[in-house]
Amino acid sequence: MIGEIIAIGDELTSGRIINTTSGFAARQLFAAGHEIVAMHTIGDTPALIGEALKRAIRRADFVIVTGGLGATSDDLTNEAVSKALNRPPTLHRGILNKIRARLRGGTGDQALLEKLAWLPQGAEVLNAESRMAGYLLVDDATPIFFLPGVPAQMKELMVEHVLPCLAGWSTDKRHHFRQRVYRTFGLGENMINEYLRHMEKTPQLKIGYYPVDSEVHVSLTVTGRDAGEADALFAEADSTITALLGGFLYGCDQETLASVVGSLLLQQNRWLGVAESCTGGLLAGKITETAGSSQWFAGGVVAYSNFLKEQLLDVDSSLLAEHGAVSAPVARAMAEGIQRRAGVEVAIGVTGIAGPSGGTDKKPVGTVFFGLCIGSTVTDQQYTFSGNRREIQEISAQTALDLVRRAL
Amino acid sequence: MIGEIIAIGDELTSGRIINTTSGFAARQLFAAGHEIVAMHTIGDTPALIGEALKRAIRRADFVIVTGGLGATSDDLTNEAVSKALNRPPTLHRGILNKIRARLRGGTGDQALLEKLAWLPQGAEVLNAESRMAGYLLVDDATPIFFLPGVPAQMKELMVEHVLPCLAGWSTDKRHHFRQRVYRTFGLGENMINEYLRHMEKTPQLKIGYYPVDSEVHVSLTVTGRDAGEADALFAEADSTITALLGGFLYGCDQETLASVVGSLLLQQNRWLGVAESCTGGLLAGKITETAGSSQWFAGGVVAYSNFLKEQLLDVDSSLLAEHGAVSAPVARAMAEGIQRRAGVEVAIGVTGIAGPSGGTDKKPVGTVFFGLCIGSTVTDQQYTFSGNRREIQEISAQTALDLVRRAL
Repeated sequence: MIGEIIAIGDELTSGRIINTTSGFAARQLFAAGHEIVAMHTIGDTPALIGEALKRAIRRADFVIVTGGLGATSDDLTNEAVSKALNRPPTLHRGILNKIRARLRGGTGDQALLEKLAWLPQGAEVLNAESRMAGYLLVDDATPIFFLPGVPAQMKELMVEHVLPCLAGWSTDKRHHFRQRVYRTFGLGENMINEYLRHMEKTPQLKIGYYPVDSEVHVSLTVTGRDAGEADALFAEADSTITALLGGFLYGCDQETLASVVGSLLLQQNRWLGVAESCTGGLLAGKITETAGSSQWFAGGVVAYSNFLKEQLLDVDSSLLAEHGAVSAPVARAMAEGIQRRAGVEVAIGVTGIAGPSGGTDKKPVGTVFFGLCIGSTVTDQQYTFSGNRREIQEISAQTALDLVRRAL
Repeated sequence: MIGEIIAIGDELTSGRIINTTSGFAARQLFAAGHEIVAMHTIGDTPALIGEALKRAIRRADFVIVTGGLGATSDDLTNEAVSKALNRPPTLHRGILNKIRARLRGGTGDQALLEKLAWLPQGAEVLNAESRMAGYLLVDDATPIFFLPGVPAQMKELMVEHVLPCLAGWSTDKRHHFRQRVYRTFGLGENMINEYLRHMEKTPQLKIGYYPVDSEVHVSLTVTGRDAGEADALFAEADSTITALLGGFLYGCDQETLASVVGSLLLQQNRWLGVAESCTGGLLAGKITETAGSSQWFAGGVVAYSNFLKEQLLDVDSSLLAEHGAVSAPVARAMAEGIQRRAGVEVAIGVTGIAGPSGGTDKKPVGTVFFGLCIGSTVTDQQYTFSGNRREIQEISAQTALDLVRRAL
């Protein structure tokens, strides 16, 4: 189906916040076989919102509208929709009761929050359980999905409600889709494109390349005339991609480097400890973001100062004096220190120069050393990354996880 | 002036690339006192490009168009503009000569590259020196700027050519703008809206409310007929907002909780150490994301296991047995442990249940204890947060920073 996306909010048109939700929606819809022909970003001005909406309904098979559904006075989407589509605000008792139940004993202006319960006539609430409910409106046989602008809420609704609804809506029942996202680390987008480009010639295969922070994700969408054809094409393409990406492919779909490392450690009944300098907690943060990580992650030390490297990781002061804090021997000593202190079998140490200052001719900004202990085996690696401070920290933390993954 | 922005490219409407250039342009224009009422992203389809362009010219005082100016077959902006505005392609000899000079001895399809020299009639090249020249077209007295879609080139042209040109262009000399963003933590968007809503009645003030992760940012835009009026209105609104937000206001514009904590520590010549359990490195990560944090942050321990709490933070095993790892006495002991081990004056300990499992009736998921040491004074706080695992970790890390900020 052909769609348009409208994002609403002065915070977007003033450039204060970069609109990431429209791109996310477009990517998901594209992968599901839909085509987005235009995306609009409109400020909090009801007349312009209404105009954009009416024009999109005329042109597209479906419309996604994000933002402006909240309770504050600058949230004007519902008002604009009511006026533009001639659908007076209607009270949704279910939402109202939920708001009242939540407010009981709490603070907040009841009248303000009850604004959330008034939706344009005909609105079907998508997720009654959520604090901010998205809704579906069908106008002129065109489904219009209204979603919150908060990225996390919008993305959840998009994946769990909008895509299944559109899949059922589609009159194009002739096609069967199979999809998978391949997550890679360590290989550039152009290189992956070269490896896989020959597959793009097969008309039933659609391949997308998406850099996500320091990773590249590859999406495969297979279209078959029936389930059997789709399954067969998918199996073949899947094994080709898996073979071509090799060790750079660390997981599929929702897996992360940390979750894959965790699965390997659990299988092998081993525990992990980390000693961080330049990543400053980001590595531990990536690990503990994973639910259940307390089953395989003992903890770590963020040894930003030399004093803490000596004090908590037993790094010898002579080592620091001789080689400097950013060096292979110190990275190894950090890993050995946390391995011993935390009583774990697997340990990694990271020390480097994230910038913006601190670089030298011999060790420019981006120089990072890794020390890895697996049992009694200690190894080290040196990398030179480019990017700003946060990018260097990000790729360093990812590299640490990838080194552990490959060693396991 | 009132403007619209049009970004062109299938890579944007398919979500393969997130559009960051429109947001950049909007932010620059907003800061220069212009108002962007709508931004559009259109695929490489000449008819849709032309339609969007004509509509924007009717509505806006100026238009920015980015993308589709290159030499490959999917670059269709010039073709669309020629047709929509009835301005036949015209050869620019200067550009042609530059391309030929560059091609001499080089590779590349000459015919393809010479496509760059054909611009819609009336186009004034903005930067003849560059490889891909942006241009200005004036239609119906409306300036339209055509810029390359490559972010670095677009941004350079925006700052060096578009903004100065618009500043000279503007016939609307009547308005002067003043702006500020107020960053708050600990107060809901609705509550802030209630505090400030009375100010929205003043027509010269525009106030926006933006939840960003666990924070709420408030933007103030003041419009005055002259610089004096703008300054006076701004000073009054600024002091009202600052007073109403009180201790919840932690900083303005680009400041973060971590950068504000860092400034306070630097001023007082004190060092910080952190001991994390449930935030698992996220707190240290937020701190070390700040450039220069090595001047006030010694480091920390991510003590995920009880063993590490004893081993690296000297938390007494009897304390863990008696009160459990998630308790006020353990939070205090963690803070005291890192304070002593890192030799710092300011230390904070965080222990809690981020979920999804691990909660009990007495200590449900979201229960978090904080222990804070400032010199020899030790205090503790208990909070119960809601949200998923990552949201609880996020708000816990922010709360830790805010507790340090308020104590300093």
